[in-house]
Amino acid sequence: MTMISKINFRVRYQETDRMGVVHHSVYYIWYEMGRTEWMRERGFTYERCEVEGWFLPLVESGTKYLSTATYDDLVEVETVYWPDAKGISFSFEYIVRNLSRDQKVATGFTRHVCVNREFRIDRQATQKLREIFT
Amino acid sequence: MTMISKINFRVRYQETDRMGVVHHSVYYIWYEMGRTEWMRERGFTYERCEVEGWFLPLVESGTKYLSTATYDDLVEVETVYWPDAKGISFSFEYIVRNLSRDQKVATGFTRHVCVNREFRIDRQATQKLREIFT
Amino acid sequence: MTMISKINFRVRYQETDRMGVVHHSVYYIWYEMGRTEWMRERGFTYERCEVEGWFLPLVESGTKYLSTATYDDLVEVETVYWPDAKGISFSFEYIVRNLSRDQKVATGFTRHVCVNREFRIDRQATQKLREIFT
Amino acid sequence: MTMISKINFRVRYQETDRMGVVHHSVYYIWYEMGRTEWMRERGFTYERCEVEGWFLPLVESGTKYLSTATYDDLVEVETVYWPDAKGISFSFEYIVRNLSRDQKVATGFTRHVCVNREFRIDRQATQKLREIFT
Repeated sequence: MTMISKINFRVRYQETDRMGVVHHSVYYIWYEMGRTEWMRERGFTYERCEVEGWFLPLVESGTKYLSTATYDDLVEVETVYWPDAKGISFSFEYIVRNLSRDQKVATGFTRHVCVNREFRIDRQATQKLREIFT
Repeated sequence: MTMISKINFRVRYQETDRMGVVHHSVYYIWYEMGRTEWMRERGFTYERCEVEGWFLPLVESGTKYLSTATYDDLVEVETVYWPDAKGISFSFEYIVRNLSRDQKVATGFTRHVCVNREFRIDRQATQKLREIFT
Repeated sequence: MTMISKINFRVRYQETDRMGVVHHSVYYIWYEMGRTEWMRERGFTYERCEVEGWFLPLVESGTKYLSTATYDDLVEVETVYWPDAKGISFSFEYIVRNLSRDQKVATGFTRHVCVNREFRIDRQATQKLREIFT
Repeated sequence: MTMISKINFRVRYQETDRMGVVHHSVYYIWYEMGRTEWMRERGFTYERCEVEGWFLPLVESGTKYLSTATYDDLVEVETVYWPDAKGISFSFEYIVRNLSRDQKVATGFTRHVCVNREFRIDRQATQKLREIFT
């Protein structure tokens, strides 16, 4: 079963920098939007996750920048889930496309763990989420 | 007794936008840094405020933009406290100067109330803070 | 003729702060999104404005915060144009509503002038934009 | 010869998110501050780089998150330069420490190329920068 989610939106002026293009840190914010919708489509929102007392902070992130996007460009973020083999962390991969220019802009990933309010690994919640996500 | 605090720092690249200058929303973030140091100099940090369960959300903010600043410019924020006559809110005024260009960049203000964790006005804390601030 | 434009979108996690709600500076970024769509609906995008060499920096901004919004809330920004009497500046007013909680969150405004690439007032462009906007 | 630069500063309230800690995207902004000061200490600021028409966009970035930082924590960013073997790109590595809690918070890297105003690789400028940086 494919577990892909796609969102699209326009680049905000504030997201650009003096180089004329989207600042490289912004992609990580877009990935977060991608995860939000991916989880909503799985029927278990991240909002509900936090209501349960489960938090998914990042343990790793990375991006390869392939081209650029600028103000008002229509951008698509594709989010794919990768259950990690070890069973402790969750990974998502992202492809950012500039629909206004028909170009792939970036690919990236984030790796998460599930912790409780005290930022301690919650193994039970991790197991439940893995079942919900798969 | 004057209740003025000054900080200075360099403009971050990310704070600029495609127009080549600091994005107008960033000034409000700088004001927040100004308040932080103003309170530290009063001997009662905002961090300690939140430990006490007192929060100071904004009820109003405003800025007049006079000139611009860009990446790597040395900027100064001057923060002045204004106890509101009515006794319910706190106001701060800010002057932003571009020290690299010897220009006044912006003037602004923020008005705050003191609330508890449930976002309800805390009159007792308000009174205590007014005494600490004055 | 009414010149109102409405957009809606979900609050990003990154837009919240430690107080649990949307940071007060974010509203100004949302206003910018509102203006973008208002201009698109007028048939003259801000992107095209910059292609013409016309820029619309802010000379003033302000917000009254009425309630709050948090992650994943569905938010609406209503943008209204006010041609300034003096004929030099352009003003927009904004109403931010939290559709998830059926609450008005904030009202604000921005005032702009039209400048060329050298940040000098462009009276001819100002006049043209006033005609396009009205 | 060591080519290490260190800066420190306090975490801004706006840099935190609803989880109570610094948002993961902010580290990339801090790295940029680290590079800025590293270049200043080398005697060739990035500001001057752009005046020359040389831009250093990212082609890759990554972070491992080890612990957290929150509002008002004193944070240190250590920046180290790594000239890439191939001679086309420049890499920097970063260590973020929370001085308030005596903890390593994150390690990361960014990889850059040198381009001209049209975003085309500038080999001559690349060569000059490699000499300046080493």
